[in-house]
Amino acid sequence: MTPITTIVFDSYGTLFNVHSLSHRLEEFFPGKGQEISQTWREKQIEYALLRQIMGNYTTFYEITKDALIYAIKKHGGPVTTEQTKQLVEAYLQLDVFPEVKAVLSQLKDKQLVIFSNGSLDMLNPVVKNAGLSGIFNHIISVDDIEQFKPAPASYNYATKVLNTKAKNVLFVSANGWDISGAENYGFHTAWINRKGLPTEELELVPDTTYPDLRGILEWI
Amino acid sequence: MTPITTIVFDSYGTLFNVHSLSHRLEEFFPGKGQEISQTWREKQIEYALLRQIMGNYTTFYEITKDALIYAIKKHGGPVTTEQTKQLVEAYLQLDVFPEVKAVLSQLKDKQLVIFSNGSLDMLNPVVKNAGLSGIFNHIISVDDIEQFKPAPASYNYATKVLNTKAKNVLFVSANGWDISGAENYGFHTAWINRKGLPTEELELVPDTTYPDLRGILEWI
Repeated sequence: MTPITTIVFDSYGTLFNVHSLSHRLEEFFPGKGQEISQTWREKQIEYALLRQIMGNYTTFYEITKDALIYAIKKHGGPVTTEQTKQLVEAYLQLDVFPEVKAVLSQLKDKQLVIFSNGSLDMLNPVVKNAGLSGIFNHIISVDDIEQFKPAPASYNYATKVLNTKAKNVLFVSANGWDISGAENYGFHTAWINRKGLPTEELELVPDTTYPDLRGILEWI
Repeated sequence: MTPITTIVFDSYGTLFNVHSLSHRLEEFFPGKGQEISQTWREKQIEYALLRQIMGNYTTFYEITKDALIYAIKKHGGPVTTEQTKQLVEAYLQLDVFPEVKAVLSQLKDKQLVIFSNGSLDMLNPVVKNAGLSGIFNHIISVDDIEQFKPAPASYNYATKVLNTKAKNVLFVSANGWDISGAENYGFHTAWINRKGLPTEELELVPDTTYPDLRGILEWI
């Protein structure tokens, strides 16, 4: 078997828990934190997909703000510029999932990479604030080429930046659509199925599926 | 003002109520009809977007079946081939929303069109079964060019088939993502906001918004 030299991680939902902001949302919108958080995330993903298809790229930072505004409006909260700003900035302070640091510490002989739809102005701070500085060899954003995942061009861009081949890469994501895109492109794939969801019905089955990140240690 | 000569309707959610199948779902999966219906629709839309981005086109009929299988699995029902077949075929027998026929009957001096992500093997039967035969001058499917809405190429294809110009078209849809795509392309737009949702935060505001189809009579 071709050796896996590089492990590429998605960021949001995979390493960082986007719903760790529920309590901040709850402070501003009592009783609605969880549902706003849910809609925020759904719309964030949807808006990236729609902008990709419509050819209307903007940064994930802007999309995150737009999705938050939609979510607050949907669930009946008043939108104020100051609160929106504070909440989007809280995206730079997301919690890592509990097992992440221990798993990463066992992968030191691999090239470790974050590859995200997020822009670097979001990724660099969230990595630093979570105490993960120095662990990743590369942090790559689709923002460089303005092609959101799961466009094949985005995964291809990461492969070129890393000067590697798809068959030497294990791609790790908790997002079904992202694993489908990586499988479609040709990476080895590990789906971190944190919510116990069914496999996406897209004729693109992940190579492996684990309930949390510890499962990927099988690959080393 | 340039005259509107052509009114182009989206199908699912706009003319036809996809949730009119909840009772069929309820027969097979007691207590779960509504949630399966909801997930079915969400995944149907998501899978079309993802396949568009990944370059993995398949017909909307296949996508509808795949989304149903996912939805049944997610909500814990057993998936049997026979039930799945019956439910997907029920998609050919959707109810029209209550006001649709009366509104269409007042638009007889316009060119009336259905333009849908659905394939013709779905659209022709659902139109016939709903008693709408003979009302539409054209029924156009993205299947002809294998480009799902909201890709600009899809709206452009409809415009070419109709031998018209975007500025002479009123596009009518209940789906926020579809109205965004039509606005992005350059149609006049009427968003049928049946669920009282916020406007999508995509820098593409619909020209008009109505709670049901009756509002579009303002345009004639």
